[in-house]
Amino acid sequence: MKAPEPNHAAGNPRVGPFRQRLWRIIFLSDTPAGRLFDVVLLWLIVLSVLLVMMESVESFAVEHGVLVRGLEWFFTVAFTAEFVLRCWVARRPLRYVFSFFGIVDLVSILPSYLELFLTGTHFLMVVRILRLLRMFRILKMAEYLGEASVLLDALRASKHKISVFLFAIAAAVCVEGTVMYVIENGQNAGFSSIPQSVYWAVVTITTVGYGDIAPVTVLGKMMACVIMLTGFSIIAVPTGVFTAELGRSIAEGGATKLSPRSCGECGSTGHPPTARYCHQCGTELG
Amino acid sequence: MKAPEPNHAAGNPRVGPFRQRLWRIIFLSDTPAGRLFDVVLLWLIVLSVLLVMMESVESFAVEHGVLVRGLEWFFTVAFTAEFVLRCWVARRPLRYVFSFFGIVDLVSILPSYLELFLTGTHFLMVVRILRLLRMFRILKMAEYLGEASVLLDALRASKHKISVFLFAIAAAVCVEGTVMYVIENGQNAGFSSIPQSVYWAVVTITTVGYGDIAPVTVLGKMMACVIMLTGFSIIAVPTGVFTAELGRSIAEGGATKLSPRSCGECGSTGHPPTARYCHQCGTELG
Amino acid sequence: MKAPEPNHAAGNPRVGPFRQRLWRIIFLSDTPAGRLFDVVLLWLIVLSVLLVMMESVESFAVEHGVLVRGLEWFFTVAFTAEFVLRCWVARRPLRYVFSFFGIVDLVSILPSYLELFLTGTHFLMVVRILRLLRMFRILKMAEYLGEASVLLDALRASKHKISVFLFAIAAAVCVEGTVMYVIENGQNAGFSSIPQSVYWAVVTITTVGYGDIAPVTVLGKMMACVIMLTGFSIIAVPTGVFTAELGRSIAEGGATKLSPRSCGECGSTGHPPTARYCHQCGTELG
Amino acid sequence: MKAPEPNHAAGNPRVGPFRQRLWRIIFLSDTPAGRLFDVVLLWLIVLSVLLVMMESVESFAVEHGVLVRGLEWFFTVAFTAEFVLRCWVARRPLRYVFSFFGIVDLVSILPSYLELFLTGTHFLMVVRILRLLRMFRILKMAEYLGEASVLLDALRASKHKISVFLFAIAAAVCVEGTVMYVIENGQNAGFSSIPQSVYWAVVTITTVGYGDIAPVTVLGKMMACVIMLTGFSIIAVPTGVFTAELGRSIAEGGATKLSPRSCGECGSTGHPPTARYCHQCGTELG
Repeated sequence: MKAPEPNHAAGNPRVGPFRQRLWRIIFLSDTPAGRLFDVVLLWLIVLSVLLVMMESVESFAVEHGVLVRGLEWFFTVAFTAEFVLRCWVARRPLRYVFSFFGIVDLVSILPSYLELFLTGTHFLMVVRILRLLRMFRILKMAEYLGEASVLLDALRASKHKISVFLFAIAAAVCVEGTVMYVIENGQNAGFSSIPQSVYWAVVTITTVGYGDIAPVTVLGKMMACVIMLTGFSIIAVPTGVFTAELGRSIAEGGATKLSPRSCGECGSTGHPPTARYCHQCGTELG
Repeated sequence: MKAPEPNHAAGNPRVGPFRQRLWRIIFLSDTPAGRLFDVVLLWLIVLSVLLVMMESVESFAVEHGVLVRGLEWFFTVAFTAEFVLRCWVARRPLRYVFSFFGIVDLVSILPSYLELFLTGTHFLMVVRILRLLRMFRILKMAEYLGEASVLLDALRASKHKISVFLFAIAAAVCVEGTVMYVIENGQNAGFSSIPQSVYWAVVTITTVGYGDIAPVTVLGKMMACVIMLTGFSIIAVPTGVFTAELGRSIAEGGATKLSPRSCGECGSTGHPPTARYCHQCGTELG
Repeated sequence: MKAPEPNHAAGNPRVGPFRQRLWRIIFLSDTPAGRLFDVVLLWLIVLSVLLVMMESVESFAVEHGVLVRGLEWFFTVAFTAEFVLRCWVARRPLRYVFSFFGIVDLVSILPSYLELFLTGTHFLMVVRILRLLRMFRILKMAEYLGEASVLLDALRASKHKISVFLFAIAAAVCVEGTVMYVIENGQNAGFSSIPQSVYWAVVTITTVGYGDIAPVTVLGKMMACVIMLTGFSIIAVPTGVFTAELGRSIAEGGATKLSPRSCGECGSTGHPPTARYCHQCGTELG
Repeated sequence: MKAPEPNHAAGNPRVGPFRQRLWRIIFLSDTPAGRLFDVVLLWLIVLSVLLVMMESVESFAVEHGVLVRGLEWFFTVAFTAEFVLRCWVARRPLRYVFSFFGIVDLVSILPSYLELFLTGTHFLMVVRILRLLRMFRILKMAEYLGEASVLLDALRASKHKISVFLFAIAAAVCVEGTVMYVIENGQNAGFSSIPQSVYWAVVTITTVGYGDIAPVTVLGKMMACVIMLTGFSIIAVPTGVFTAELGRSIAEGGATKLSPRSCGECGSTGHPPTARYCHQCGTELG
């Protein structure tokens, strides 16, 4: 989620001023033009994603076939232009192309061109949906950057704990699924194999509960109750982990950002933003 | 949610004492009469909403047709009287009419009058149920004011983070829905299009799990397990964000309440428990 | 949840030592005999509750009719004996009889006697289930008392906030239910009236999602997605409120309980349990 | 989850250096060879568990019968070899055999041998899936040890509170299930007995909501709404308890890390940020 071209941040002496200005508009969003570019691009992305979705609705695709194909090519050309532009203004085009967003950009325009040469390309749909990944670009918008980084920091800090938790959950659903298989198998078509039962256990422990598979025996229902109550309590773990990390992350970030005015005399911190005097030694704060 | 008529708070010299007293009863709830007015109004609102609901139950509407229409007109007249009264006592009637609660008040009496002239106004039922929004006046009552404002502060403070989160969720369900569409389409009538699959993804990731659509292929079930466990972990994010903000909000509010050591000189509060000097005027705290 | 007979706590000079000892065994659990009494009673309660449950299973009731009736009378006699004993040893029997637990005790033995005189008493089942309330006696067990009081404190402290939240939820499900009724009514038998739609909204917003009612129109599904994502975010509110209150409650309770050793010299608190010297003035802690 | 052989930690003078090195590889993971052993073992466990699962899929078991039996014996022999090796290198083999992991190790190889003599041993499948428990050895690996112990500490600290909570939930579902039984019984085959209704209450209060049983009467649906909203609020309790404990647990651990002002004299840590004197030896902190 880093800005893909940090090497440009300090300007680029080797390219002309026009390309440099273009680079700033396209890759950053600290100018009015740059913001406008981002917003227009964002809307194009959202609309193209909606188009891909609507295309999959058969009745819609049949009825508006020409419109759909027309719009599809409009988006493809627009995104191609954007991609070429990005390659042109970037100082190290290859580095952009092989960056996360570069690959996403490329992958989201390729399917349309491939369709010209290939037919019956059902699997291209998978590739085309990668266009959706472009939506994550919104995270680059400066306004939200700070917030997202706090969230990501908290997620990163709780990575190991969440791994341990997911590992424990995986083990739990395997054991629970097997137990339910032994209990229900024979009386209940839904528990026909252990993988199927494990799927049920996941559906249950996450409290999703589709109901396509449900226990029918008395023992199975008792076991299900235990599993559900466990799952209910277990939901506390990721929330607790994330909350604790986020609380710490906010507390630390907040302390640094909000009160840079630690006392110059005694060094004590924690003054509220409106403080005028140090609350430890009474010295006026700078 | 602000008090709609702050300009009245300090009294209104241009209107007579009777209208001023009436204004206080109707717009505030700091007098016994004002409280009574609020409570009666609240019950009228609740009963009128229940009536609108019951009206939609066909057997009930047929059986008690006359009663329903009678009560409907009773409520309409009562709310009209209240609206006219509010306009009369308010110093700036137009400002009240175009305030949030003014519009809600007007909108909740209009449908009944419109039905006199129009027919087939089924959708006016929705408008009529908006009367419910008038119940939020209760939040202005003293015992809830503080609580509601703490909750709203915490929500406001976590607004950006929750936006980022909802956006990430939206992107996730689009990608997941599309993947499931590619996997299940053809074998499962439930995944007939991408929008349908995205709907399934939302139902799953929020752990609602109706079960009207459920994966049937092995690959689909495996994918569903991954999505469910992700959703399960993701539930931690809004909770964590809100809890952290609320904790901070309470802690700050609490600091004011818990530290009796407000400055004796300038009266400023918010000193941390270990403070020795007022951070506003530098006086030593008692 | 208070101990029902606080007036006995300091002993009771008017009754003999035997009744006083008996009172201590029955009403408190600070002696080995008192603990044993509690454990035996607890098991009797659990078993009698299980019996009531199993009685409702038709095949079981038919097959083991004699056993069921025999056990039922055994429990009735045992609980009657307990009730009489409690009345006898209590200094103010009436006060016990009309206390929360006294009523529960009485109500849980009455149905069996009433059945001797009345027949076809289907509604007695409701009364009999009140016996379940006896299970809450476990809260009296000293070991858990501290924990429960922290939980109850946190719940009590967040009472107003949770009210505001439940109020907002109630308003939300009414509005959402009505909107869904207008959208789905006619195409979907599940949304046949507003109360029915409100029921669906509650099922959805709480993420229970039975699936007995599910939207079928495109607009309905889109609306449902919005409602689900809102519900998903809203789950954060009660959790956040309770967590924040509990965190404060634990922090305060912990500070008081764990370190009674505030500094005798400067009065500063917050010393960790292992502290030997005051961290403010360096005086040795007592 | 303790290391099963703490008595080996300081080396074992009575056994030869080869066995001692082998012991280090097998029981610890602080050498490259030890890590490799752990990783290989982990994969064998995962694969053997997958095999047991796949075996339960009838079509797979029929088609690949020979392969399945072959792999089953390969895993059995491998795990037997590992078990024998562990017994040989352990200083006190019996202590290992009767430790938690020793029993799990033994239990996971026994079923295959038992199947040679017994037939119709369907339920041994459950026992074989217990191999999964061996995966928890991974938690002994250094990078997870700290995380797991923080999580376990928080769980252990909130044990009593979670017990009280689960007990309250158990009492609640019993009461709610009985009430729903009284309301719905007769009109709804799903509420045919109290245990069945309690099962429904658990499914509802945990927000799983299969939908195999759902209220059909108006009163039942109203009651269900109340139960759902309660369950929704109640989810806050375990999360709040765990988060608060984890926050404290992290804060305490964090305090050590964050406050660089450990005492220069005695090295003791854990001073609050405002501490001026060491709380162990009274020295002024730097």
